[in-house]
Amino acid sequence: MHAKLTGQDVAKHNNKDSCWVIVHGKAYDVTEFLPEHPGGSKIILKYAGKDATEEFDPIHPPDTLDKYLDKSKHLGPVDMSTVEAEVKAEDPEEAARQERIANMPILEQCYNLLDFEAVAKHVMKRTAWAYYSSGADDEITMRENHSAFHKIWFRPRILIDVEHVDTSTTMLGDKCSIPFYVTATALGKLGNPEGEVVLTRAAHKHDVIQMIPTLASCSFDEIVDAKKGDQIQWLQLYVNKNRDVTRRIVEHAEKRGCKGLFITVDAPQLGRREKDMRSKFEDVGTSVQKVENDNVDRSQGAARAISSFIDPSLSWKDIAYFQSITKMPIVLKGVQRVEDVILAVEHGCAGVVLSNHGGRQLDTAPSGIEVLAEVMPELRKRGMENKIEIYIDGGIRRATDIIKALCLGAKGVGIGRPFLYAMSAYGEAGVNRAMQLLKDEFVMNMRLIGANKVEDLNPSMVDTRGLFTHTVSTASDTLSSSAYDVLCAPSFKEKAKL
Amino acid sequence: MHAKLTGQDVAKHNNKDSCWVIVHGKAYDVTEFLPEHPGGSKIILKYAGKDATEEFDPIHPPDTLDKYLDKSKHLGPVDMSTVEAEVKAEDPEEAARQERIANMPILEQCYNLLDFEAVAKHVMKRTAWAYYSSGADDEITMRENHSAFHKIWFRPRILIDVEHVDTSTTMLGDKCSIPFYVTATALGKLGNPEGEVVLTRAAHKHDVIQMIPTLASCSFDEIVDAKKGDQIQWLQLYVNKNRDVTRRIVEHAEKRGCKGLFITVDAPQLGRREKDMRSKFEDVGTSVQKVENDNVDRSQGAARAISSFIDPSLSWKDIAYFQSITKMPIVLKGVQRVEDVILAVEHGCAGVVLSNHGGRQLDTAPSGIEVLAEVMPELRKRGMENKIEIYIDGGIRRATDIIKALCLGAKGVGIGRPFLYAMSAYGEAGVNRAMQLLKDEFVMNMRLIGANKVEDLNPSMVDTRGLFTHTVSTASDTLSSSAYDVLCAPSFKEKAKL
Amino acid sequence: MHAKLTGQDVAKHNNKDSCWVIVHGKAYDVTEFLPEHPGGSKIILKYAGKDATEEFDPIHPPDTLDKYLDKSKHLGPVDMSTVEAEVKAEDPEEAARQERIANMPILEQCYNLLDFEAVAKHVMKRTAWAYYSSGADDEITMRENHSAFHKIWFRPRILIDVEHVDTSTTMLGDKCSIPFYVTATALGKLGNPEGEVVLTRAAHKHDVIQMIPTLASCSFDEIVDAKKGDQIQWLQLYVNKNRDVTRRIVEHAEKRGCKGLFITVDAPQLGRREKDMRSKFEDVGTSVQKVENDNVDRSQGAARAISSFIDPSLSWKDIAYFQSITKMPIVLKGVQRVEDVILAVEHGCAGVVLSNHGGRQLDTAPSGIEVLAEVMPELRKRGMENKIEIYIDGGIRRATDIIKALCLGAKGVGIGRPFLYAMSAYGEAGVNRAMQLLKDEFVMNMRLIGANKVEDLNPSMVDTRGLFTHTVSTASDTLSSSAYDVLCAPSFKEKAKL
Amino acid sequence: MHAKLTGQDVAKHNNKDSCWVIVHGKAYDVTEFLPEHPGGSKIILKYAGKDATEEFDPIHPPDTLDKYLDKSKHLGPVDMSTVEAEVKAEDPEEAARQERIANMPILEQCYNLLDFEAVAKHVMKRTAWAYYSSGADDEITMRENHSAFHKIWFRPRILIDVEHVDTSTTMLGDKCSIPFYVTATALGKLGNPEGEVVLTRAAHKHDVIQMIPTLASCSFDEIVDAKKGDQIQWLQLYVNKNRDVTRRIVEHAEKRGCKGLFITVDAPQLGRREKDMRSKFEDVGTSVQKVENDNVDRSQGAARAISSFIDPSLSWKDIAYFQSITKMPIVLKGVQRVEDVILAVEHGCAGVVLSNHGGRQLDTAPSGIEVLAEVMPELRKRGMENKIEIYIDGGIRRATDIIKALCLGAKGVGIGRPFLYAMSAYGEAGVNRAMQLLKDEFVMNMRLIGANKVEDLNPSMVDTRGLFTHTVSTASDTLSSSAYDVLCAPSFKEKAKL
Repeated sequence: MHAKLTGQDVAKHNNKDSCWVIVHGKAYDVTEFLPEHPGGSKIILKYAGKDATEEFDPIHPPDTLDKYLDKSKHLGPVDMSTVEAEVKAEDPEEAARQERIANMPILEQCYNLLDFEAVAKHVMKRTAWAYYSSGADDEITMRENHSAFHKIWFRPRILIDVEHVDTSTTMLGDKCSIPFYVTATALGKLGNPEGEVVLTRAAHKHDVIQMIPTLASCSFDEIVDAKKGDQIQWLQLYVNKNRDVTRRIVEHAEKRGCKGLFITVDAPQLGRREKDMRSKFEDVGTSVQKVENDNVDRSQGAARAISSFIDPSLSWKDIAYFQSITKMPIVLKGVQRVEDVILAVEHGCAGVVLSNHGGRQLDTAPSGIEVLAEVMPELRKRGMENKIEIYIDGGIRRATDIIKALCLGAKGVGIGRPFLYAMSAYGEAGVNRAMQLLKDEFVMNMRLIGANKVEDLNPSMVDTRGLFTHTVSTASDTLSSSAYDVLCAPSFKEKAKL
Repeated sequence: MHAKLTGQDVAKHNNKDSCWVIVHGKAYDVTEFLPEHPGGSKIILKYAGKDATEEFDPIHPPDTLDKYLDKSKHLGPVDMSTVEAEVKAEDPEEAARQERIANMPILEQCYNLLDFEAVAKHVMKRTAWAYYSSGADDEITMRENHSAFHKIWFRPRILIDVEHVDTSTTMLGDKCSIPFYVTATALGKLGNPEGEVVLTRAAHKHDVIQMIPTLASCSFDEIVDAKKGDQIQWLQLYVNKNRDVTRRIVEHAEKRGCKGLFITVDAPQLGRREKDMRSKFEDVGTSVQKVENDNVDRSQGAARAISSFIDPSLSWKDIAYFQSITKMPIVLKGVQRVEDVILAVEHGCAGVVLSNHGGRQLDTAPSGIEVLAEVMPELRKRGMENKIEIYIDGGIRRATDIIKALCLGAKGVGIGRPFLYAMSAYGEAGVNRAMQLLKDEFVMNMRLIGANKVEDLNPSMVDTRGLFTHTVSTASDTLSSSAYDVLCAPSFKEKAKL
Repeated sequence: MHAKLTGQDVAKHNNKDSCWVIVHGKAYDVTEFLPEHPGGSKIILKYAGKDATEEFDPIHPPDTLDKYLDKSKHLGPVDMSTVEAEVKAEDPEEAARQERIANMPILEQCYNLLDFEAVAKHVMKRTAWAYYSSGADDEITMRENHSAFHKIWFRPRILIDVEHVDTSTTMLGDKCSIPFYVTATALGKLGNPEGEVVLTRAAHKHDVIQMIPTLASCSFDEIVDAKKGDQIQWLQLYVNKNRDVTRRIVEHAEKRGCKGLFITVDAPQLGRREKDMRSKFEDVGTSVQKVENDNVDRSQGAARAISSFIDPSLSWKDIAYFQSITKMPIVLKGVQRVEDVILAVEHGCAGVVLSNHGGRQLDTAPSGIEVLAEVMPELRKRGMENKIEIYIDGGIRRATDIIKALCLGAKGVGIGRPFLYAMSAYGEAGVNRAMQLLKDEFVMNMRLIGANKVEDLNPSMVDTRGLFTHTVSTASDTLSSSAYDVLCAPSFKEKAKL
Repeated sequence: MHAKLTGQDVAKHNNKDSCWVIVHGKAYDVTEFLPEHPGGSKIILKYAGKDATEEFDPIHPPDTLDKYLDKSKHLGPVDMSTVEAEVKAEDPEEAARQERIANMPILEQCYNLLDFEAVAKHVMKRTAWAYYSSGADDEITMRENHSAFHKIWFRPRILIDVEHVDTSTTMLGDKCSIPFYVTATALGKLGNPEGEVVLTRAAHKHDVIQMIPTLASCSFDEIVDAKKGDQIQWLQLYVNKNRDVTRRIVEHAEKRGCKGLFITVDAPQLGRREKDMRSKFEDVGTSVQKVENDNVDRSQGAARAISSFIDPSLSWKDIAYFQSITKMPIVLKGVQRVEDVILAVEHGCAGVVLSNHGGRQLDTAPSGIEVLAEVMPELRKRGMENKIEIYIDGGIRRATDIIKALCLGAKGVGIGRPFLYAMSAYGEAGVNRAMQLLKDEFVMNMRLIGANKVEDLNPSMVDTRGLFTHTVSTASDTLSSSAYDVLCAPSFKEKAKL
């Protein structure tokens, strides 16, 4: 056993011709890997010759270097006492964030899922917030996902005995306490140092299903290891161009007990999210010089950094392949029109998730709830309504949203960002409270709509007449509206401040 | 007769193991009652060993302790001179409120019902305001209740002789001066120390009917005692799980002369109102420590404090029971869809109130006026339009709103919050002016629509084409709208301040 | 001839038991008239014993006292040198207004009708502005009047030879240069000391027709005297309960050459306009004490002050009477639904004005342009489209608005407030520029729509599909919209101020 | 050769009776030309006796004086050293602009076309910005052009192999890399001193077609000279009343290789653009005195300055003439209704551009995309869909906008202002980045909608149900909305600044 490397040894390799970095106390030679790095070489070079652990951690599972970097490039442990401590410049923005954290509302002050988002917005790091909260282009679809629910109104029944409300249901044959599941979202450590296992523990506590993301910050096995008892987990899959890689992932997941395979089909290419790109730019861009004309999009935020492993040629004919390598029920995640639901039935899929990827892919794609309202009548017309389970995700913030989806025929709904926000602001306690609030709302609103079990919900309980209208009001006549003298309430005497 | 208790005697019992409180100069042992208190034990413990009168009064009728606390727990009078006066901390918010009260607009400056709300918002205590003004979830239904009227437009007739306008009508067979009634609202003393009897006196003056709330701050008998002459009152009823309790209430009301029994059917569980919860939290939360994970909703505002006495198992089969115990006409309050109006007819109800409980129960439940526009054509189709009286409440602020409801077939409308706001800001004079303003508006608008009695109003006088549209505009393209350079009016030279 | 009265003589009669006032150098005893004053006694008593000329002038034609006050109450001339000059308190609001006037934009900076409104808003006296600009209740109809035009979109024709555009047309058989007329509006001297004759002169210059208001500040004869050559004028009529008074007015108008009689039918009672009432209140209310409970609406603004002379019993059967006393064509002003247009045809009326009185009467009454779009197809179906001339008024601000009305079948449109605003801000020059701007817009837009004369305009040139939709967007989900992190444009470095 | 003129020689001719000006070092006698100047004599007189080059340049091609001013008025070169340098007053607005330019975002911070607009707004001269950014009347159509795209939603297909996306297409038979072209816009030098040739170079680099504007700042030949290789250019034509002038232009363009003739048909008269007029007014108006009544619109901005050369009598019968003088395919630019597309087919046109001239002509004219959605079904019904190529322009800012147009049947789309803004803010590099961003978006969104070549796009991929709705929400009830107490997120402790 030879002596540990010193900080000075590593520091010499600080450029693209020879680039070493330290991660978790070990040095790696990434010179040859630079051009292949999905997130671009620039971000690595920022840490050339230095300790990159802090930047590395949230966006790579711990087994990344073992899996993707040849052993010959593993240079061994570094004597960290010899590594020059990075003197961080005073960052007034970070100082302000720390002050906000010190003054943040206590958990009990959060009364609904949106409250977590409002808190997270102010206590998360800006780049992390930007990654979680951003959507495609003008973020119209992202916002539509939630507001679409406000186009659906209830037709509640009264004088139904609702003393006992049973919220349990099944998904892909497995029982769960309430018809929502934790959907897959990437890079959990951006919000919490423990990452996705926090969600696993909360999911167990509340008996809800968790879908494990391909792009988790924790490794797949860490997340599976965190489950307890007969807790149900599913696997979300981005299909790699190298089908062997994909096969190993699927087979491993099945062996580890995953109960469903959710293949993402709405992301042949990961979307551009400008809020994310802009936040990243400003993070690395402080000393950036004027650039030449053609260099488009070199710094593209976290979303683009993780997009290389997805096969854009994935098509319907690949479904049979997946059916050949696994017994897990196969669900297509990201279906966006009724024709493709029919195809999914015909290809023997167990389910579909009507989803636009949280509004992060194609802007002005319709919301899952709107597609659902078109899908179910067509399935019923064809007698297919029991041949497939329909899920939706996107924009769900209230139990009323879940109930509307169930009235329209969904088997369950996926919830993503709200739990990330709860976790980012308050950790596991936050996620627990978020789930409990949803459950409390759910029981109450079942009573108020006049239903005491999930099966009671049906289309006659909702009015969807406004759902399909995508209007934009005619532009306001600003001369007229600014000339208009707005009506005022009675005025208090001058001194009183309102 | 033994000596009075002293403040010191009581002060020793200041914890959950032995909890005494003073109310109106008498001590009570509420130790055993703590876990049963509908508002939670926390709020009582805040006053353990102390005088709780000020907190107790607005949310409990004076006969509460006699009715609900066993006599053995009544410890007798306290020598109040020995009770240590609570030294109230300087409260800058309360000081600011008192200054606003000193500067508030005079009553004559209120020209419509909304003006009272604008004033009340600034002069009421925050917790009281929050209780009155809050609604369910995102308060979408609460606001829809009013804005739905703006989707209905008039088709006025001209050249009708409208010199003499008669605004009188009947409700459940009793005459009244104008087709609105004071609907039941809880906790009147939050707004005015006298509570609901203020409304009773104003109702008498204007010859309008009052519905007495189950959850009044005054006792039922106080409210009935306040009526004069042949003034008409109805009883609003929350049905208790213990039917004997309910029976006693109903029989007593009938004996005291109530002319209608309005059974609330939209509240098997009282709604969550977050504005109310939040205001309450901040009131008791100043010294609150970080709480453990699971403690959901321990401080839940006034609304939750009063919700335990409602039977969630109430159902259609109970209607016959009520018909068996009273001769009062039975009206279902809180019907929300046409199918249930038909059921009400079939069950022999005298009327229904199409209502969503002021938007305080199920969010995105439809407004009463919208349901009305669906109900009446269906009743007419079935020849049932004269078999039942249809009322609506929610969102009525203008006489035009009342006229629209009557055009569509309502027999009358209930008005709640506006009178509470008028009472809270200006007392009885405020309620009187509010009613008079409505009457003046009503006469004028009857003239302007070309009707001189209530019976003249009919569906041809309104255009409801926009009523059923529940749209949400597509999310704005903020990059584009912020880049847009808004047109401006001609500019004044610099010095002039506009 | 006896000696003139002195200021001291008059000053003694300064109360309701003996109330003298000076108007234009003459004293009047108005003690007995106090209770009959349409504007209430309060406003007169403010000037009891004093010179009331300045307040009197804008809201009374000069012949008012001669016409309505018995000669015995005319006390004769006052030696004005003995009248104590009113020492006006420094009024900071008036000083600010004068400064704005000193800095106001020059006339050339007004490029459209709305610009005059924006200027007038800042340079008019607040009470005058409030009287002109106010509408009924929530002013929803007032604003709808203009915005309804934005629901109509053009379907322009191209490649039409539009070198020569002829904008002339006829109304009630008389030629005019362009299809708009100056409609009747009350109290012109509130905006300009000369009053309505300013409009008369501008109308002559531009060869447009003027409708003379019953409630003008100038006397009827002053306005007729101001016309030149064969200038066309019409009479707008509020029908007095005393038909002899009305008959004298009509016969006199016909004798003086009026070419049309426009009977107002949308105002059996003058509307409540709260902005007007509130401004008036604040004007007289500075020393007002808290008032007793019942005194509703004692100070009600200019609108209510002039409302007593209107007969609310006017009805269809009165039309024949008017036909018997005049040969002028009779036009009903204020028709609001298609059924009543049919009745007007059947009663032999020459025309109707589809109008809601500028949104000043019944709130949520439909706009004239919307009613027009319903009326014309029905008239055509019945073969009545040539039996009556259809006019509209309300909300017209652009030549495109006029063109839309003409495409839909209107013979012409009335314009009121915009000319008042132009007159109030810039006098006659302002009205001239306003008319010229409209003409320039009209010629240009005729070219752009592909029409070179008024007759070319037809319904195929407009798309009215959105016109009949009266929507109110579902209330915004404020928690969600405030949590949303709005997309931003690229940021400038810190120092740059945008 | 005689001696050069001196500054003093020229300076004597400084009034309307004798008016000389210097342009690019040469003197011209423009006395007789003053009344004919399309931009009015006022702006020339401002420079009488002086050097006008700086004002002249951006709004006149360099060959203007040679072409339009008789040689006898060309006075020859001036010794510029004798011309008194104009002492420019300190202009705080210009100084602020220069500071903004110094601090402007670097090009890499622009992530989409709207970002360029946001930057250009702050770094362009106000008058130039006003000319580019202004629209007709209330700019409703201008804004509708973009927002109309937000009424169209996608129906994306999934599981299509989209590894290889081919974005190329043809227009009028010529190949290009992507289905957009640079449409004609006037006065390029207002944004960049080099003018339109900047666009020519960028168009070449990206293999997109450029349409050359009649009203370019560069001369036609300069723009053609700037093209490289087989780069495609088209000619946009305003038809002059003198057909010989027009003929010379057309023949010359054909000879120089233009591949399409786009005749503007939506501008028989150039529109009024008040933002432009207002900015111009304020530029020349600093010393303006109060003007007389009638002088309407003497200073009317850049738009009016260039409008005299357009023949308003152009009509359908002129099409044959153009077909007789050129072999270039003829396309009508500015068609606005389906009937006129049919006529275009019948007249043998090769194409039409559905356009409202960027919202600069007739306000409330429909957007091109809306007209397209009406046109294509009608063409298909008549079997004409292959007889003509349909283009649209107006409001395109995202690749999704282009894809929507192509789904609905457009052959391509024109983009104007965005490239002007990119050029004005960042020069050629800006235009290049703008085009590259569009291309990147295009490829990605083709993948996300499930198409790998332009031909795959079809109407089933879009939902246009909301497109034809032109609504204006009912005016808000301001009393109610201001009384409403908005829901708030949990509050941070006081010190924290959010």
